[in-house]
Amino acid sequence: MSEIDPLRGMPRTFPINTWYVACTPDEIAEKPLGRRICGQHMVIFRGADNQVAVLEDFCPHRGAPLSLGFVKDGNLTCGYHGLALDCQGHAAHMPGQRIDAFPAARAFPAIERYGFIWVWPGEAAIADPALIHPLDWAESPDWAYGGGLFHIQCDYRLMIDNLMDLTHETYVHAGSIGQKEIDETPVETAVIDGQVVTQRFMWDIDAPPFWRAALRGAGLADDVKVDRWQICRFTAPSHVLIDVGVAHQGHGGRDAPAQYRANSIVVDFITPETDTSHWYFWGMARNFAPQDQALTDRIRAGQGAIFTEDMDMLELQQRNHLNFPQRRLMKLNIDGGGIRARQILDKMMANESSQ
Amino acid sequence: MSEIDPLRGMPRTFPINTWYVACTPDEIAEKPLGRRICGQHMVIFRGADNQVAVLEDFCPHRGAPLSLGFVKDGNLTCGYHGLALDCQGHAAHMPGQRIDAFPAARAFPAIERYGFIWVWPGEAAIADPALIHPLDWAESPDWAYGGGLFHIQCDYRLMIDNLMDLTHETYVHAGSIGQKEIDETPVETAVIDGQVVTQRFMWDIDAPPFWRAALRGAGLADDVKVDRWQICRFTAPSHVLIDVGVAHQGHGGRDAPAQYRANSIVVDFITPETDTSHWYFWGMARNFAPQDQALTDRIRAGQGAIFTEDMDMLELQQRNHLNFPQRRLMKLNIDGGGIRARQILDKMMANESSQ
Amino acid sequence: MSEIDPLRGMPRTFPINTWYVACTPDEIAEKPLGRRICGQHMVIFRGADNQVAVLEDFCPHRGAPLSLGFVKDGNLTCGYHGLALDCQGHAAHMPGQRIDAFPAARAFPAIERYGFIWVWPGEAAIADPALIHPLDWAESPDWAYGGGLFHIQCDYRLMIDNLMDLTHETYVHAGSIGQKEIDETPVETAVIDGQVVTQRFMWDIDAPPFWRAALRGAGLADDVKVDRWQICRFTAPSHVLIDVGVAHQGHGGRDAPAQYRANSIVVDFITPETDTSHWYFWGMARNFAPQDQALTDRIRAGQGAIFTEDMDMLELQQRNHLNFPQRRLMKLNIDGGGIRARQILDKMMANESSQ
Repeated sequence: MSEIDPLRGMPRTFPINTWYVACTPDEIAEKPLGRRICGQHMVIFRGADNQVAVLEDFCPHRGAPLSLGFVKDGNLTCGYHGLALDCQGHAAHMPGQRIDAFPAARAFPAIERYGFIWVWPGEAAIADPALIHPLDWAESPDWAYGGGLFHIQCDYRLMIDNLMDLTHETYVHAGSIGQKEIDETPVETAVIDGQVVTQRFMWDIDAPPFWRAALRGAGLADDVKVDRWQICRFTAPSHVLIDVGVAHQGHGGRDAPAQYRANSIVVDFITPETDTSHWYFWGMARNFAPQDQALTDRIRAGQGAIFTEDMDMLELQQRNHLNFPQRRLMKLNIDGGGIRARQILDKMMANESSQ
Repeated sequence: MSEIDPLRGMPRTFPINTWYVACTPDEIAEKPLGRRICGQHMVIFRGADNQVAVLEDFCPHRGAPLSLGFVKDGNLTCGYHGLALDCQGHAAHMPGQRIDAFPAARAFPAIERYGFIWVWPGEAAIADPALIHPLDWAESPDWAYGGGLFHIQCDYRLMIDNLMDLTHETYVHAGSIGQKEIDETPVETAVIDGQVVTQRFMWDIDAPPFWRAALRGAGLADDVKVDRWQICRFTAPSHVLIDVGVAHQGHGGRDAPAQYRANSIVVDFITPETDTSHWYFWGMARNFAPQDQALTDRIRAGQGAIFTEDMDMLELQQRNHLNFPQRRLMKLNIDGGGIRARQILDKMMANESSQ
Repeated sequence: MSEIDPLRGMPRTFPINTWYVACTPDEIAEKPLGRRICGQHMVIFRGADNQVAVLEDFCPHRGAPLSLGFVKDGNLTCGYHGLALDCQGHAAHMPGQRIDAFPAARAFPAIERYGFIWVWPGEAAIADPALIHPLDWAESPDWAYGGGLFHIQCDYRLMIDNLMDLTHETYVHAGSIGQKEIDETPVETAVIDGQVVTQRFMWDIDAPPFWRAALRGAGLADDVKVDRWQICRFTAPSHVLIDVGVAHQGHGGRDAPAQYRANSIVVDFITPETDTSHWYFWGMARNFAPQDQALTDRIRAGQGAIFTEDMDMLELQQRNHLNFPQRRLMKLNIDGGGIRARQILDKMMANESSQ
C-alpha cells in the first residue's frame, strides 16, 4: 500500500530495511522531535518507561503533526484535539471519545544504543537489533566521544564519497588537516567482510595544524616528524568510521606504542532525509585523555569547523548534478571507496525491491 | 474561456458564485491593493464617487500589474505607460492614443457594506447584493468591533474546521480561553436554515484568563463561578460567527440579565486565496462598553495573540496533509460542525459546475 | 546531444549563436566567476597569459562546480580534488593521476573587448569576433563610461521593450527623467540596416531634474528652455544604445554646437540567464568632461537609482505574465520598437533551429 511506503514503485536511492541513526537523546529530552528519514515523516519521543519510540508524524484524527504534541503518562498526545497514542501508535484515550475502533498510527522499530536513537524505516517484522553496527568505543571508559549534527542538502552518497576519498582534505581543508602529501600518496581500497576499506599511509612528514593540536592534547611533542595514517571503513547503510592518527616518526606508525601516538576514530552516521538531503551525525572518538571534557569540546569545535568547510562544496556539487542531469562522473582510483560503497548499497536496494 | 475562469475544468475547493470579504477600507485608503482571491489576481480600489471597484490585476496594454498604479480622476491608471481604466474596466484614456477599440479588463462585482469590501469572484450577471450575510451588530451603536487580518498558508476549510470545533482551545489556547471543561462537555451540531450550528454549554465553572479580563472589562466580578457558552454558526461560503460568553453562575447562562453577563461575537470571514492558502479576517463584536476604544484595542490584541497560536498548527496541518496525500481523516462528533460545513460547500460547488 | 545543448528541442526565447556580455573584468579579478547565461552554467576566468576563458561550470571528475576552484599557473583548478583544466577545458594535470584520457569540459568562445568579457553560448565553430557590435566611444579618450550590473527576474525581452519605449519614464521615473512631454510626443520607429531605431524629439521644454544636473555637469545653464531628444537603437541580440540629450533651446537640438548641449549614450547590454531572468549591464557613456571621475560616479549613482525604479515593475510584469499565461498584449505605436526587436530575435532563433 502506498500508505505504508510512499516511495514504493519509485527508484529508491537508499535501502530502508536497515538501521539508521535517527537522533541523539538530547534532541528528545524536552519534547517530541519531528524528523524526516528516508522520505518518511516521523515523530521521535520517549514514551512509557522512558523507552524511545518512533511513529509517523500524522495524527489519525485530523492529520495534525504529532511532533507538535507532548508526552503525558507515557503516551504521545496530539496538540490539536488531544488524541493520545501509545508507543506502538495505538489510540490510548481521547477526551469524550470511545477510542476502541480508532486506527493506529504506523510505528517504526526504534532502539537506543551507543548514545544514539536508531530507527528501521522499512518492514518492521524483519527489524533485528543485532544488526546494529557494534561500536566498542561507545561502551568503553577508555574512550571519549564528542560530536554534532548537520542538515545537508545533498544525496547522502555524496557524503559517503567525500569521506571515503580524503584527497579532498588537501583542497577543502588546506588550513587544518590538509597537506600535499595526502594528494601525493596513493590509496588502497578493498572490500573485507562486507566492509569497504580505503587506506593511506604517509611516512616521515610534518603534521598539519589539527594534528599538532592533537599531539599537544595527548601530551606529546608537536614539533617532530610524524607518520600519519587514514583508514576509512564504510559499513552499510551509511556508517563511515575513519581510523586516523599520527605517531612520532620511526616508532611504527599506527603500531607505535601509545606514548608516541595520537589517534582517534572519526565517526560519521549519514541518514538520508530525501533523495537530495541528509542528516549528518559527525563526531570523534578518542582513547587518550578520555576524562578531559575541555579537550572533547575543543576537538568538537575544531571538527565542526572543518566539516562546515565541506558543506558548501557538497551542496553545490548536488546542485550541479541537478543542473547537469545526464552527465556521468569519472571513476579514478581515489574514488574507489565511494564506488564500492555504492555497489553495496545498490545490491541492498535490489534485494529489497525483489522481496 | 480559460481567460475568464482560470480554474475551469479543475476540481475547485471553493465556490465562486458567492460574496467573500476582499479587504477592509483602510487597505485601499492610500493606493490600490493587489490581492489574489479564489485563485484570481485582483486589484481593489476606490474609483469615481468613492465607489469600491475590483478589476483583474492585469493591464490590457502590456500586462503590468494594475495594483502598481494609482487612481486619478476616478480612474485606475497603470503605473507603467498610463492607460486609465474606469471602475468597469473600460479604457478611459491614454496619452497619445485612441482608446475606442481597447479591450476591457475584467471587472468583478464589488460592494462596501458593514465595514468590509465584498467581492463576487464568479459570474457577474448573477451577483446579488442581497445575498451578503446580514450583520446587525455592524450597524448598531450598541456594539463595538475590532479585528485584524492574517494571511494563512492552508486550505480555508481547515480554518472552518478549527472554528467549528472549539475543543482545540484546551490544547492550543491553554493559557487564555482553553480549559478542561471544554474537552469534557459534549457538543451538539445541527443544520438550521442552511446554517450549521455547533453549541456547547458549560455550567458552574471557573472562567479562564481571557474571560476574567472580559468580565472586568464589562465591570463585573471575575472571581466567581460562571456559566459559559460557545455557539458556532457557519454560513456559506465561509463566515463563522461565534456567540461566546460567560455569566455569573446561577443567572441563566446565556439568558442571564446583562448585569451578570459578558459576551460577544467572534467574527471570522475566511476568504480563499488558493487551494492551500487564505485570508483570515478575524475580529470581535461586543455589546458592552461599546465606546471604550481602549477596551477594543485590548481585546483585539488579546484575540490576535490567541489566533496567532492557531496559525502554526493550521499551516503545519496543511503541510502534513500534503505530506500524506492519500490519508482519510476521522469524523468524530466534535468534527460535526466542520463536516456539515463542507457538505454545504460541496453542494454549492456541484451546483456551480453543473451550470 | 543534450550534453551540448540542454535546451535543444525546447522552444527557445533567445538566440545562442551570437555574442553576449558575460561579465566585466572586475568580476573575475580575484577568482573564477560562476554565471548562468542562456540557460548554461558557465565559469569565467582569466587563464594563461591573462586571456579570458569560459568553461561549463562542471568538473569532469565528480561534478563539482569549477567556479569554487582557483586559477594556478594559468589552469582552472577544481577546489574539490584538484583536477586542473586549461582554457580550452582540457585536463592539464591532477595529482597522482594520468590525465591523458580524461574528458574535456566544454569551452565557450570568449573575448575581452571594450571593457567587457563577451561569450558565444552556441556553436563554437561559427563564433566570429568580428560580429561583436562596434563601440567607438569605448576606445576614445574623449568619452567616459560608468555603469553597473543588475540581476533581474524577468524575460530579457521585457527589458528590451522597456528601453525601446521611453514613455514609461513619465510614470516610472517621474522624479528624475520623466516629464509629461514624453507622453505627449509621438515616436517614430524604423528598421535601418538590421537596427531598430525609435526616436522622439521634444522642442522648447523644461529639462527634468536629471538633465538639469547634466547641464550643470557640462558647465551649462540649467534654467533655460531646452530641446530634448531620445534615439533608441536596438541591435541583436540585446544591445540597446540610446542617444539622449538636451540642448539650449533654439540651437538645433541634437545638432546644436557642443557649448549648448549635454548628451550621452545610455548603454544597455541585456544577457539572458533563463527564460525568465537576465543580467542587465547598464551604463552611460558621455563625451563631456571625460576626465571628471567624480562626475562619472555621480552619474552612475543617479542612473543606478533610476534603473532600480524599473526593476520592481519589470519583475512584477513578468510575474503577472506567468499569472495570466494566455493573455495577448496590445501593440500600440509606442510599442513599435520592442515589437520590431522581437521580430529580429524570432528570425535569428528560427535560423538557428533550422540549422
